[in-house]
Amino acid sequence: MDEFSFIKWIKSNQKKDKNIAIGIGDDCASIRINGDKMLLVTTDMLVEGTHFDLKKNTPGEIGKKSIACSISDIAAMGCSAKYAVVSICFPHETKIKFAKELYRGINEMANAFNIKIIGGDIVSGKKILVVNVTMYGKNEGLKTITRSGAKVDDVIMITGELGGSILGRHITFKPRLKEGLLLNKKFNINSMIDISDGLVADLGHILEKSGVGAVLYEDEVPISADAETLARKTGSSALHHALHDGEDYELLFTLPCNESKKLLSYRSFPVRLSKIGYINESEGIKMQNSDGKLKKIKSLGYKHFK
Amino acid sequence: MDEFSFIKWIKSNQKKDKNIAIGIGDDCASIRINGDKMLLVTTDMLVEGTHFDLKKNTPGEIGKKSIACSISDIAAMGCSAKYAVVSICFPHETKIKFAKELYRGINEMANAFNIKIIGGDIVSGKKILVVNVTMYGKNEGLKTITRSGAKVDDVIMITGELGGSILGRHITFKPRLKEGLLLNKKFNINSMIDISDGLVADLGHILEKSGVGAVLYEDEVPISADAETLARKTGSSALHHALHDGEDYELLFTLPCNESKKLLSYRSFPVRLSKIGYINESEGIKMQNSDGKLKKIKSLGYKHFK
Repeated sequence: MDEFSFIKWIKSNQKKDKNIAIGIGDDCASIRINGDKMLLVTTDMLVEGTHFDLKKNTPGEIGKKSIACSISDIAAMGCSAKYAVVSICFPHETKIKFAKELYRGINEMANAFNIKIIGGDIVSGKKILVVNVTMYGKNEGLKTITRSGAKVDDVIMITGELGGSILGRHITFKPRLKEGLLLNKKFNINSMIDISDGLVADLGHILEKSGVGAVLYEDEVPISADAETLARKTGSSALHHALHDGEDYELLFTLPCNESKKLLSYRSFPVRLSKIGYINESEGIKMQNSDGKLKKIKSLGYKHFK
Repeated sequence: MDEFSFIKWIKSNQKKDKNIAIGIGDDCASIRINGDKMLLVTTDMLVEGTHFDLKKNTPGEIGKKSIACSISDIAAMGCSAKYAVVSICFPHETKIKFAKELYRGINEMANAFNIKIIGGDIVSGKKILVVNVTMYGKNEGLKTITRSGAKVDDVIMITGELGGSILGRHITFKPRLKEGLLLNKKFNINSMIDISDGLVADLGHILEKSGVGAVLYEDEVPISADAETLARKTGSSALHHALHDGEDYELLFTLPCNESKKLLSYRSFPVRLSKIGYINESEGIKMQNSDGKLKKIKSLGYKHFK
């Protein structure tokens, strides 16, 4: 059983509540506070050896990433981030200097996005460092953009460039909070997700939740320089890395064709935007090459459980 | 540096915000939502080897404890618990049966207190199991009872019996949510905390936050049968265990003398209540024995950091 099947099983046990606007299975949950006012909630656990490497990453970088991952989830709903609580498990005998540097990273990233740290938990355990951030956002009178709103004929777009984040960007990325909020304020976005599992896997989440299919243009997927560098080492193509590598933390979204034109002619959008495909009535994802040929592509899953 | 000094250092870096009613350093943080409506937030990380032992505890018990700890923090504010998000790090190759049993424990405890699980994060890592719960509560039009409201001449009271929780109660305890809310609804409670670090340590938190001192009556501290059993093994006294053992998850609170009389004559309070001392103008905690003699007692601290 993989992570996603387990989450589906968890969701099947979830109790209903009229104030839960969005429950398990999106980038954030959303609780109705007052009329159209929503409280967005997301939680992310970062574990040594899985999400960072103490041999390569400084404590400050780890602190920054822990906050940035949660910001990215709120960005994917087109909302603004406000508060966070942080739990940290330090290995026994951690030096206080290390703990303070990690915390300074947390504060630096939180301050950069005007997020207040309102509480937390400090524990110690054997062997590994674990950081959990739970973050709160607000919808600011806007809609909350989910994974389930993609419509047939929507254009699929993405911010930035993809692939090879393992070379460093997975820890130093800047979450697209401003961009997500701008998209929600100025354009009619039907669905959105941040790229944490990889373009194909995360587009897959949108398709599954929305009950639609997609075609990606092989030549239009924005490939990062890191994907090129990594491809020279791994023997896979740079495109393969752009399609399947995780932790890009770019925003993947779908919108009606006329809205996409408006967006592409919007001059002051802060980052590169690419139109990479469209939504159709089929199932799954097909890739269209420059000759117009279609080929099915599948997500390269990751099994957490035996 | 210990955990508490580190938390003070963190707090000194905290940014102010008019909507943060209670920030770092209490059982819960509190965010102003609408007038007097508060959202309570607490987060607790449970780590294998520190908070549970896979050789002794079942996955279901671990799941239950993870939810119960957060409920206890909301109980300590006299508020009601509503929603939770749960992050779990499973060691690589965890069996799905184990994961489901853990999750069933989470659901069972959440359902027993009518708390909805609205989201979470599932990750995997090497070696150890970690569960983080962030829980939301509401003040239901009542005040939020903090650690900082203890007043000179307040009576100090406690629910249940203390000590020896390591023999099992630390994992199977029933959080005092109903009791905390009842205390807040019917009585004028000045300060409250749940016993996680131990009676002396947690009373110390109230005293420090409130700028007062306390006297405890040696003969009035309610000693659990577990404390007696443990004392026979450790050679320490049962009283020592009742004073210093952590994870009792009972409610420790202070209130004016007349309120305490009202409470003690309230017939349908669901658990044992003990009047164990009073607040005074001095500093720290003194213990008064049956001869009326006073002796200073100190918290037995636990250092997380080098």
